[in-house]
Amino acid sequence: MKAAIFQGKGKIEVQEVPDPVIQNPDEVIVKITHSCICGSDLWFYRGLSPKDEGSRIGHEFMGIVEAVGDEVKNLKIGDLVIAPFSISDGICQECRVGETRFCRNGRFWGTGGYDAGQGEKVRVPLADGTLVVVPEKNLDEHMIRALLPLTDVLSTGHHAAVDAHVGEGSTVAVIGDGAVGLCAVAASKRLGASRIFLVSTHEDRASLGKQFGATDIIAVRGQEAIKQIKAATDDLGVDCALECVGMADAWDLAFGAVRIGGNIGFVGVPHGVPDIPVSKLFSSDVGVKGSGASARHYIPELMPDVLSGKLDVSAIFTKTIPLSDIAEGYKDMDERREIKVLIKP
Amino acid sequence: MKAAIFQGKGKIEVQEVPDPVIQNPDEVIVKITHSCICGSDLWFYRGLSPKDEGSRIGHEFMGIVEAVGDEVKNLKIGDLVIAPFSISDGICQECRVGETRFCRNGRFWGTGGYDAGQGEKVRVPLADGTLVVVPEKNLDEHMIRALLPLTDVLSTGHHAAVDAHVGEGSTVAVIGDGAVGLCAVAASKRLGASRIFLVSTHEDRASLGKQFGATDIIAVRGQEAIKQIKAATDDLGVDCALECVGMADAWDLAFGAVRIGGNIGFVGVPHGVPDIPVSKLFSSDVGVKGSGASARHYIPELMPDVLSGKLDVSAIFTKTIPLSDIAEGYKDMDERREIKVLIKP
Repeated sequence: MKAAIFQGKGKIEVQEVPDPVIQNPDEVIVKITHSCICGSDLWFYRGLSPKDEGSRIGHEFMGIVEAVGDEVKNLKIGDLVIAPFSISDGICQECRVGETRFCRNGRFWGTGGYDAGQGEKVRVPLADGTLVVVPEKNLDEHMIRALLPLTDVLSTGHHAAVDAHVGEGSTVAVIGDGAVGLCAVAASKRLGASRIFLVSTHEDRASLGKQFGATDIIAVRGQEAIKQIKAATDDLGVDCALECVGMADAWDLAFGAVRIGGNIGFVGVPHGVPDIPVSKLFSSDVGVKGSGASARHYIPELMPDVLSGKLDVSAIFTKTIPLSDIAEGYKDMDERREIKVLIKP
Repeated sequence: MKAAIFQGKGKIEVQEVPDPVIQNPDEVIVKITHSCICGSDLWFYRGLSPKDEGSRIGHEFMGIVEAVGDEVKNLKIGDLVIAPFSISDGICQECRVGETRFCRNGRFWGTGGYDAGQGEKVRVPLADGTLVVVPEKNLDEHMIRALLPLTDVLSTGHHAAVDAHVGEGSTVAVIGDGAVGLCAVAASKRLGASRIFLVSTHEDRASLGKQFGATDIIAVRGQEAIKQIKAATDDLGVDCALECVGMADAWDLAFGAVRIGGNIGFVGVPHGVPDIPVSKLFSSDVGVKGSGASARHYIPELMPDVLSGKLDVSAIFTKTIPLSDIAEGYKDMDERREIKVLIKP
């Protein structure tokens, strides 16, 4: 089979690798039908976070179960499955309280000798705890593309909204117009937000944001963006700021846009974000909460709304490529020519 | 009339001062019947936070309205009133979202020429926005002592629980066995917590904590306390940690006791607490939120439960003194001989 391999900064290659076989009874083999490239893949691609050369890559995929280990209970050959971006056992203390991202036996695709999602097949450890079966059959391509973001970006956008305590009637500012930010808009709308500001200086992304539920586009950055959000909220600020970037500027915008007593939910992997003085929180009653999303926990809650058509962010996939073109796909995302690239192995 | 005056570190004097008179039409004059000494008063008493010598002091009091300015609408002579520890107009943007502690026109008792609560009478600015009328008449002394903590410590303990998102079935760790910590126990119980750990190495305070709803007393400090809380929660930690001290050790305990994905509510005025690395939050999904409490906002919600007898923390008052003995009262609290001292001018 073929799989994408990281060969150092800016270099992705498709190579021939051995077909996966079940090594432990808790595993299944999935034939990948749909995969994608994540904004977070760009960190190692750009050389900004460490990754061993020769690593398998990719952590967002769907596919069909092809072989099942002896101890697997909830999956059978032929099932269409969604794979969250982190592997979890579903039974440890953290999994039981819904924090599957922090599973005690958890691991990540492509680390410690495990397969990854940008390839033709994958061996899935802890399969019962990790994979979610799609209960409907004969779904069309559009619906698969609407389900695929549950693997990461839609669950992550939802997590930003949950951690920022978005609820009925909330005013929300979404900082970041990448796939996660756009999904955070859709998730906020789903949770009942009455007004959603999307900070975006890119017309195509802003237009998608509007389609997903943004009521106001803030097409400027920094202090000017804060000024516009404040002006539009009677000088109060928003109840919930969703930080979907992970950089210092985005955090400044979040703190500037959120009202006294509001909440910042953050899901951008922090890169160079300064420590938060406790006195800054104490003098504003602003709450701060965030992390990688427990996608495995969220998918069963979100999936019905995707299947019913209520929650559809499939439009984030602005390009579809075969696995053989993946190097080009990384380049497209790196240069922000595409919002998100879908791979059909 | 007489009032307590701060005369420098460790020195409180009762002096003769002019009787207050109404200076603006939004004001009332209150004859104070009950007042108290706050743990936060000890910061300036100990010389650890700045306060001008000659300042009027005290910010927790109840009393009877004695005179009413022309523009006051909701108060009349003879009303029994509760005064929150901060003054608020009730109409600004922050007040309208319940953040009265951050009122744009807000101020604090004893600052900027304003009277304060450890004295015989007080001029109350923004009286409609600030004071809460007790709707029942002929309350006995016990009930007044149960209402008085609403001015600050009970509202503050409640705020810690609210900011830590305590709800039905929550597991809670309260850090701090002062009046605020004890009130946080009672507030957590009221909000439905199923298990409440109180960290306390003082038998008298621990016993009061149990009376207020603590299910487990952790009678050790630091790492050992964390170990005991973890052991009692299947190695998970608590859903909600309530930091009611404001010192670095208490924060370490809060971070150590809270589970992945849990919440820290903090109300201890931060003194020497290190900045929080964003990566520490991101790698735990722990939420952090806290501030001084918007007592004015909380009192109408909490008061009915006090009046019905369901919420009674009057036992935090371990000593009652006349105003003339206030210097001794400060000493008692400074040396932790008393939990909270009540003053009857």
